[in-house]
Amino acid sequence: MSLLVVGSTAFDDIETPHGTRVGCLGGSSTHFSLAAALFTEVRLVSVVGEDFPAEHRALLERKGVRLDGLEVKPGKTFRWSGRYSADMNSRETLDVQLNTFGDFAPKVPPSFADSRFVFLANASPQTQLSVLEQTAGAEFAVADTMNLWIDTARSELDELMHRVDGLIVNDEEIKMLTGETNLIRAGRRALQMGPKLLILKKGEHGCFLFSNFFQSAMPAYPTEKVVDPTGAGDSFAGGFMGFLSTCDTLSLWNMKRAIAYGTVAASLTVEGFSVERLATATREDIDRRYQELIQFVAV
Amino acid sequence: MSLLVVGSTAFDDIETPHGTRVGCLGGSSTHFSLAAALFTEVRLVSVVGEDFPAEHRALLERKGVRLDGLEVKPGKTFRWSGRYSADMNSRETLDVQLNTFGDFAPKVPPSFADSRFVFLANASPQTQLSVLEQTAGAEFAVADTMNLWIDTARSELDELMHRVDGLIVNDEEIKMLTGETNLIRAGRRALQMGPKLLILKKGEHGCFLFSNFFQSAMPAYPTEKVVDPTGAGDSFAGGFMGFLSTCDTLSLWNMKRAIAYGTVAASLTVEGFSVERLATATREDIDRRYQELIQFVAV
Repeated sequence: MSLLVVGSTAFDDIETPHGTRVGCLGGSSTHFSLAAALFTEVRLVSVVGEDFPAEHRALLERKGVRLDGLEVKPGKTFRWSGRYSADMNSRETLDVQLNTFGDFAPKVPPSFADSRFVFLANASPQTQLSVLEQTAGAEFAVADTMNLWIDTARSELDELMHRVDGLIVNDEEIKMLTGETNLIRAGRRALQMGPKLLILKKGEHGCFLFSNFFQSAMPAYPTEKVVDPTGAGDSFAGGFMGFLSTCDTLSLWNMKRAIAYGTVAASLTVEGFSVERLATATREDIDRRYQELIQFVAV
Repeated sequence: MSLLVVGSTAFDDIETPHGTRVGCLGGSSTHFSLAAALFTEVRLVSVVGEDFPAEHRALLERKGVRLDGLEVKPGKTFRWSGRYSADMNSRETLDVQLNTFGDFAPKVPPSFADSRFVFLANASPQTQLSVLEQTAGAEFAVADTMNLWIDTARSELDELMHRVDGLIVNDEEIKMLTGETNLIRAGRRALQMGPKLLILKKGEHGCFLFSNFFQSAMPAYPTEKVVDPTGAGDSFAGGFMGFLSTCDTLSLWNMKRAIAYGTVAASLTVEGFSVERLATATREDIDRRYQELIQFVAV
């Protein structure tokens, strides 16, 4: 089924213990799209500057990402610079240049308006709400968010949480959102704020999935090689939404499988800088790791 | 099959956000024993002072813990005082009075010498090695350890790791032991140091099980009620060893089930102060939570 993503496209400058990359392809919508495209065609809504190279467009299109909604504006593409700690469990943002992303007002093109699955990558809740208004027929909409919006746009975020089907947050964010330190209690509390489904990402510790009818856990895929964690969360969301959009029903069973596919997509992303590993991954890679992950948790 | 545990018996003074308890029953061997006794008879080797009350002995005996190896020495019982942080993910030791535990030299009574499963709770590697010498026929011996011994008794610990079948450590300890920050790499590296089986406890994030033939993950049981984490790790070990000692074979399948049972035992312990919850738990409680945990991870 049709899957739309709205988010950032960026140039990333990245330092990790494994090396440095300057100006590589990044952004939430990029990681999401390349992961989701392993399962289905992806419709991208984002913005770049005139400096965005043809080769990046070509890569996305070749992988099955439709760029009808990729606006090109005068000026430069959004740029993010960051440095990871030695154990890669934390990172420092060194510089942010919003550039053309600064006043991003997503316009869903008519050809994408009938999208049935919608992923709202991290942006202000107001921006995310504006996308929901443009995709009124969406069957399953999921939003990401971050501490900044929990802090500064709480009432808009509260409205958003009542409008989306699912919310994806990490452990810090959910503690901030709910005031609970016990993650299980926090997950159940967040469900009372609106979303029918809550995904709690815990990085190397895997993730939890909460609904009012079930809860489920998935460890991270046991990778020994973490080169660059940038985009892991968006790739997770891409694998989750990409797989789910190919399912006949939004059943518990399919949700659980979808978080396993999200986990696998994230495990590929972290093994290379930027989208290097994800861009060369095949559906066979995904399915092999999926089986390994299932064995890893099987009792 | 016969299961022996050697470790501390203590009075604990505990402060958590849920309250305070003074002089309650504690110690690694106590939590281990009460968890393991839900599965099988447990043989305890430990030491207490003359102040150890008859009611604690009676509780242990009633639950199926044999006290032939519980030495009573002139003086006081080991006493530990600690305070947990608000989120209960860290704790501060306020006071330690080793008392009769100070020069603990475990003596395995003749009636326990044929034990086939042996758990060496945290103690100096030298003390742990002395137990292995007294239980030469043991089929499956597992040791716990701590940062102190990794720091101060590394050569004895290295010898111990070659002599035991399994080692149980937490995430901090394994990073210290191996110098690796990636937990999967750390687990595989620790296996090269001797043990055939390595269990990595991650508290609220569950655990990993490593061997040269497989690796496996288990999330924590999704409890919303953490009252006192004291003894969770020893209860985990008790559930693991207790269940395993009832199995026909030490197969991968049984190992995986055993870490699930360990997880469940730990989940009961943390729901009350000291051994309050564990002491009232039944095998039915264990089996119900085991099924819930299996559903929690099932894909």
